[in-house]
Amino acid sequence: MTERVAGFTLDEIVSRFGGELIGDGRLRILQVATLENAGPAELAFLSNPKYRRQLKSSRAGAVVLSATDANGCPLPCIASDNPYAYYARVAQLLNPFPQTPSGIHPSAVVESKLDHNVSIGAGSFIGKDVTIGAGSDIGPGCSIGDGVTLGTQARLFSHVTIYPGCRIGTRTIIHSGAVIGADGFGFAREGDGSWTKVPQLGRVVIGDDVEIGANTTIDRGALDDTVIEDGVKLDNQIQIAHNVRIGTLTAMAGCVGIAGSARIGRRCTIGGAAMILGHLTIADDVNISAATLITKSISQPGTYSGAMPFEAHRDWLKNAAHMRHLDALAEKIRVLEARLAQLENET
Amino acid sequence: MTERVAGFTLDEIVSRFGGELIGDGRLRILQVATLENAGPAELAFLSNPKYRRQLKSSRAGAVVLSATDANGCPLPCIASDNPYAYYARVAQLLNPFPQTPSGIHPSAVVESKLDHNVSIGAGSFIGKDVTIGAGSDIGPGCSIGDGVTLGTQARLFSHVTIYPGCRIGTRTIIHSGAVIGADGFGFAREGDGSWTKVPQLGRVVIGDDVEIGANTTIDRGALDDTVIEDGVKLDNQIQIAHNVRIGTLTAMAGCVGIAGSARIGRRCTIGGAAMILGHLTIADDVNISAATLITKSISQPGTYSGAMPFEAHRDWLKNAAHMRHLDALAEKIRVLEARLAQLENET
Amino acid sequence: MTERVAGFTLDEIVSRFGGELIGDGRLRILQVATLENAGPAELAFLSNPKYRRQLKSSRAGAVVLSATDANGCPLPCIASDNPYAYYARVAQLLNPFPQTPSGIHPSAVVESKLDHNVSIGAGSFIGKDVTIGAGSDIGPGCSIGDGVTLGTQARLFSHVTIYPGCRIGTRTIIHSGAVIGADGFGFAREGDGSWTKVPQLGRVVIGDDVEIGANTTIDRGALDDTVIEDGVKLDNQIQIAHNVRIGTLTAMAGCVGIAGSARIGRRCTIGGAAMILGHLTIADDVNISAATLITKSISQPGTYSGAMPFEAHRDWLKNAAHMRHLDALAEKIRVLEARLAQLENET
Repeated sequence: MTERVAGFTLDEIVSRFGGELIGDGRLRILQVATLENAGPAELAFLSNPKYRRQLKSSRAGAVVLSATDANGCPLPCIASDNPYAYYARVAQLLNPFPQTPSGIHPSAVVESKLDHNVSIGAGSFIGKDVTIGAGSDIGPGCSIGDGVTLGTQARLFSHVTIYPGCRIGTRTIIHSGAVIGADGFGFAREGDGSWTKVPQLGRVVIGDDVEIGANTTIDRGALDDTVIEDGVKLDNQIQIAHNVRIGTLTAMAGCVGIAGSARIGRRCTIGGAAMILGHLTIADDVNISAATLITKSISQPGTYSGAMPFEAHRDWLKNAAHMRHLDALAEKIRVLEARLAQLENET
Repeated sequence: MTERVAGFTLDEIVSRFGGELIGDGRLRILQVATLENAGPAELAFLSNPKYRRQLKSSRAGAVVLSATDANGCPLPCIASDNPYAYYARVAQLLNPFPQTPSGIHPSAVVESKLDHNVSIGAGSFIGKDVTIGAGSDIGPGCSIGDGVTLGTQARLFSHVTIYPGCRIGTRTIIHSGAVIGADGFGFAREGDGSWTKVPQLGRVVIGDDVEIGANTTIDRGALDDTVIEDGVKLDNQIQIAHNVRIGTLTAMAGCVGIAGSARIGRRCTIGGAAMILGHLTIADDVNISAATLITKSISQPGTYSGAMPFEAHRDWLKNAAHMRHLDALAEKIRVLEARLAQLENET
Repeated sequence: MTERVAGFTLDEIVSRFGGELIGDGRLRILQVATLENAGPAELAFLSNPKYRRQLKSSRAGAVVLSATDANGCPLPCIASDNPYAYYARVAQLLNPFPQTPSGIHPSAVVESKLDHNVSIGAGSFIGKDVTIGAGSDIGPGCSIGDGVTLGTQARLFSHVTIYPGCRIGTRTIIHSGAVIGADGFGFAREGDGSWTKVPQLGRVVIGDDVEIGANTTIDRGALDDTVIEDGVKLDNQIQIAHNVRIGTLTAMAGCVGIAGSARIGRRCTIGGAAMILGHLTIADDVNISAATLITKSISQPGTYSGAMPFEAHRDWLKNAAHMRHLDALAEKIRVLEARLAQLENET
């Protein structure tokens, strides 16, 4: 990690990531920070125009911003088409994942023969016939079931559970408490109302470059697999039911729920606590707003919403009461229209 | 597990589970599969009429279906009143739970004297005065507090936590990350706004044949117990607050929340992300739709809904604005009606 | 714990906590219970007037209630301004947290030098440069990352994860499965739709006397910290995104979600499953009702609501259809008003 201590000059940064440098390229950047808090060895970014006036007072060593904003910027700067993405790449460069030394902690229980270049944390359990790609890092207290395959450079934080037979791609990151491959919620109702469990025989198959948040759950398929395609990003406490398929590069905010067999397109964004009912198909490039319940398939790209507006409780009490009588209200209007037309005819 | 390799003939299946066999009973079934993907040694099922036309092209060895659908079915078949439940029973027969050999993993920490016929996974912790019934299987990394009682043939996947004193019934299945018996959310507000914790002295008592999903949480009671009756099925990420009682055979989909002291009836179904407020009573045989907030007790069986419909964002913007003015809208209609009546009287 | 066995006389209780005793102060109280179930050595409380008539039939040894209710109470009683808080304090006195003996369980993996007066449970992992205050109790199977600081008398139940660098205050209680300090959900979108991870460099900083429920997740900040102030109480399965700040003494019920950079005031109460969007500011003393989505900042104290009322499904079908046409409905009313005014002018 000597790179991190020494940082990078602006020249080195621009030679790696492009962009137009305005200012002295020998300036050495040690860390990233907000415009408001950055010091002289730190790089800040300006992406939201609302913070533009912070440029004047910022003590940042340099700023990444758009070509427009670079015009007249009082600080050394790098002009980029996409300042936030540029900033993210520099932040990654300056803050590489801390590399755990390879090796199996003596307190781990490992029932498979693993690649030498793998790190297994304290107290983790690795079942039989597990394959873990080189450079992968399994945190403390994980549980990896029999027959699981992990790609190279995957990173599991502590207390991740992967049920038997699931497949996880390369460079995938899974945060603590996530549960991959638990049984889908499948029960057949008997005549007496009791439920007979339907064995869940599919797997969870997760692509490359996926990130999965803390305490998110992804259930295994009933017969076919549950599939999370490459580059999907899932926040915390998301629930993905059995046989769902999520298209590549789709991102979901926290607390989203996707019911069984739903198919979500590519490059979708799903806002926090949105819910998608089962067996629906959502097209590519669909954006769903927070707290929206999707009850029908969506075939066109675009943004869809369905949350109820909030208001002061006393106003809500008055307004909400009418929601149960909208049909009657509409009927009153219909009657009014008819009576008025009658009257208009008469006069 | 030699049974699984050898499979079962259709004759053997029908002699176990009943149903009317049409076709050669000597056909050996090795696995279940979907109509679309089944091969000649696999049994499929037809329950939803929408898939009926797949019968023609299916390569399945045999199909379970209704007597009506059996009529003219081109494949060997078993006619049943409830094809999905029949299929579930065959799937269980062909896919028994993998049996972990009995024994306590040397890395487990066990402070109780346990039945010999019990399996405790790597790194699990079992406190004092714990009773675990014969045939139960505790996965790796579980934590079972002092004084817990588990019935026979219970199955806990990895990373399940059970707080002290809770009781879990026979054949109950608990998935990874579930937390049973954490303190209920009980605080008394002091005059200065600070909160004094109310000790949570009750337990969680779970009946037989219950299944609990991954990362679901069930809090212990404040003074009396939280009770989950026999045959209840809970999906992932459900939150059950203190002193709730859930009646037998009720099933809840993912992300449901039940607030404190609510009493849910028997054979209810609760859709995903539905919420039930505290101290309410829900009758038997109530179905609650997904994403519905229940704010009053329900005394009659039936289906109840309350989600807001979604639409294209630009339409939602226009329509949602009126929701905050429904009371004014209703008043406008009342005024119109009065004015119109006046006019009608005059002419 | 001999105190617990011996209990306390009413005289001793009143001399500790105040209140006016009516009855024989020598009565010894061994436990607390509900009015309905209490026996002669148990103390009950009456806070909700709806249970007042239970006083007559209760077999409780004594009751805590308001001065008004004490009037004519047939049982020995303690009159208090805040009977529920009084009861909570007595319940704490009679039910102190079971004290785990200090010491590091031999199966724990501890890479830091810890205070002698600390308890570390079986199989827990404690990273490097961790500080844990005296009297703290870490349950089995926890994972505490490098550089974490915990205050004195903190209590972590089993399977708690704390990521590196976070700070947890004195007397803080964290329930099982909670994940503190996972990466915030920060990604920059590239031109081709792919997501570049933004390193999450801030921490989670939690104050004193905070309680955090089971499977709740609190993400670390992107650049600055996520901050939970003193005395905050969070129920189960709450999701707190990066850079949120929650003011002192605020309490949130289960399944709440707070999006990134939201600032919640002091002494707020947030109902179950309510959601607060990112970058909003909520004033002090705001109460948000269950299942309400907050989409704008709130600058005035008060209660805010926004849930859709539920009803029988067939009624909901009729009424909900109109929600997508409220704008058209409002326009019809406008037209009616104009036509009627025209007619009124004519006649």
